[in-house]
Amino acid sequence: MHVIKTVKAMQALSRTFRSSGRTIGFVPTMGSLHEGHMSLLRRSTEENDVTIVSIFINPTQFGPGEDFNRYPKDHKGDMEKISTLPVEAVFLPDVSEMYPKGFSTFIYVGGIGNILCGASRPDHFNGVATIVTKLFNSVAPDRAYFGQKDLQQAVVIKKLVQELNFDTEIVLCPIVRESDGLAMSSRNSYLSDEERKSAIILNKALQYGKALIMSGKEGDISSVKGKIAAFLASDPLVRIDYIELVHPESLEQVDTINGTVAICLAVNIGKTRLIDNTIINNG
Amino acid sequence: MHVIKTVKAMQALSRTFRSSGRTIGFVPTMGSLHEGHMSLLRRSTEENDVTIVSIFINPTQFGPGEDFNRYPKDHKGDMEKISTLPVEAVFLPDVSEMYPKGFSTFIYVGGIGNILCGASRPDHFNGVATIVTKLFNSVAPDRAYFGQKDLQQAVVIKKLVQELNFDTEIVLCPIVRESDGLAMSSRNSYLSDEERKSAIILNKALQYGKALIMSGKEGDISSVKGKIAAFLASDPLVRIDYIELVHPESLEQVDTINGTVAICLAVNIGKTRLIDNTIINNG
Repeated sequence: MHVIKTVKAMQALSRTFRSSGRTIGFVPTMGSLHEGHMSLLRRSTEENDVTIVSIFINPTQFGPGEDFNRYPKDHKGDMEKISTLPVEAVFLPDVSEMYPKGFSTFIYVGGIGNILCGASRPDHFNGVATIVTKLFNSVAPDRAYFGQKDLQQAVVIKKLVQELNFDTEIVLCPIVRESDGLAMSSRNSYLSDEERKSAIILNKALQYGKALIMSGKEGDISSVKGKIAAFLASDPLVRIDYIELVHPESLEQVDTINGTVAICLAVNIGKTRLIDNTIINNG
Repeated sequence: MHVIKTVKAMQALSRTFRSSGRTIGFVPTMGSLHEGHMSLLRRSTEENDVTIVSIFINPTQFGPGEDFNRYPKDHKGDMEKISTLPVEAVFLPDVSEMYPKGFSTFIYVGGIGNILCGASRPDHFNGVATIVTKLFNSVAPDRAYFGQKDLQQAVVIKKLVQELNFDTEIVLCPIVRESDGLAMSSRNSYLSDEERKSAIILNKALQYGKALIMSGKEGDISSVKGKIAAFLASDPLVRIDYIELVHPESLEQVDTINGTVAICLAVNIGKTRLIDNTIINNG
């Protein structure tokens, strides 16, 4: 397995893969790998001749006061997990490789980056789009794999790929959950024991919302949102950031609960911000 | 010669070139081809296995009130000129192919896009960076060719390529001039006979500035700029936009006239904005 630190070396290796006609699958991560990341890696190894994973905690997608400096790191554990799969290369650039002194080029994704998580994390999705552009240009993947837990991120990246004409297919993979239903996230490690117990309310609230919608007795979006809010508010540790019912591909708010709808949640528990979502086909 | 209208078809053709190990040279243009463009195309055909030229008048690099709607078009002449060279493909997307409804993803290049021409053409270089990104992702060139007449554009694109990690070499080619010294430009066609006569003053002013610097008698930047300004002001049709002495790679203003320096000019003659520059090695 190649461990690669520079963009030039990554591009050179990617060229050797492509010139021999091998397809490249790519899983960009910020490390601290969990079973969610591993599901993306497994899928990539199944669908491509070559799989490349990147580990880079991207400073430009963190806002002031966010958790960039304390974001969990587990290099040894990450490398052990990756080595259990047929992964050809790990791309491990440092910050000065990706953002050298004087760096000033950024991607702005427009309105889709300002709703949902973008409303409380301004410039987050511009930072995501910028690093994804840089990583895609370094790796030149045929397919790139993202998890549905970060649904807005996946939608933003699909739009980025379409609008900037990247020759890369974006593959969205299902949310992987702990046995009690909590969506896997590197940020779960921030939770105290008590907070960890509270955190299962996100998935429960999504299941509650889904049941409300599937019952056919709720016709009104704001009523569903209000009931989910009340459900979440029953736990005193939970502070709601947003509850939104949106089209899962456009992220536009839905007018009715017929058809396909994503319930998207963001809450704060203690100092930890957690997100989760579920997509409901109520055709 | 392939004539290609869609990004998908361009990407598919580019893939066939790359998978057979052929290098791709790319010349992006806005059409109305002149000998300057032809010099780029010839260089590309000499240095690459395959040459692709694009013709696309990019709306996002024109400001309100600029000449987007009247920019010269000569499709028949362009195709005739291209067909004299071993060019494999002409990429001819229309505006709705490059900027479909709802398009919202833009590249911002930072401070380097706000000086010189960027000061009087806000967002021009962001539009240039956005379309170049889209074209590079469509064509996936090994090398792309730009003319030194648009020096700031070339510097911005080199920075774009470096900072977003495009795996493409930017080749800067010399300015091609008319026999009387006027730099070739599609916009020269806007000039009346009288304006056309005045326009030769740009190159004359550059040569005058160069002689001042090479004389070794001018140590002061503002004195050189003042003398060039007076030279240009001798023609009543000429209105100066800027005269700057900059490092040709960073575009930062020089403190002294020792070393390598670019004299960059922009003037308006009637309704036509013209630019020109010369790079002086005064080591």
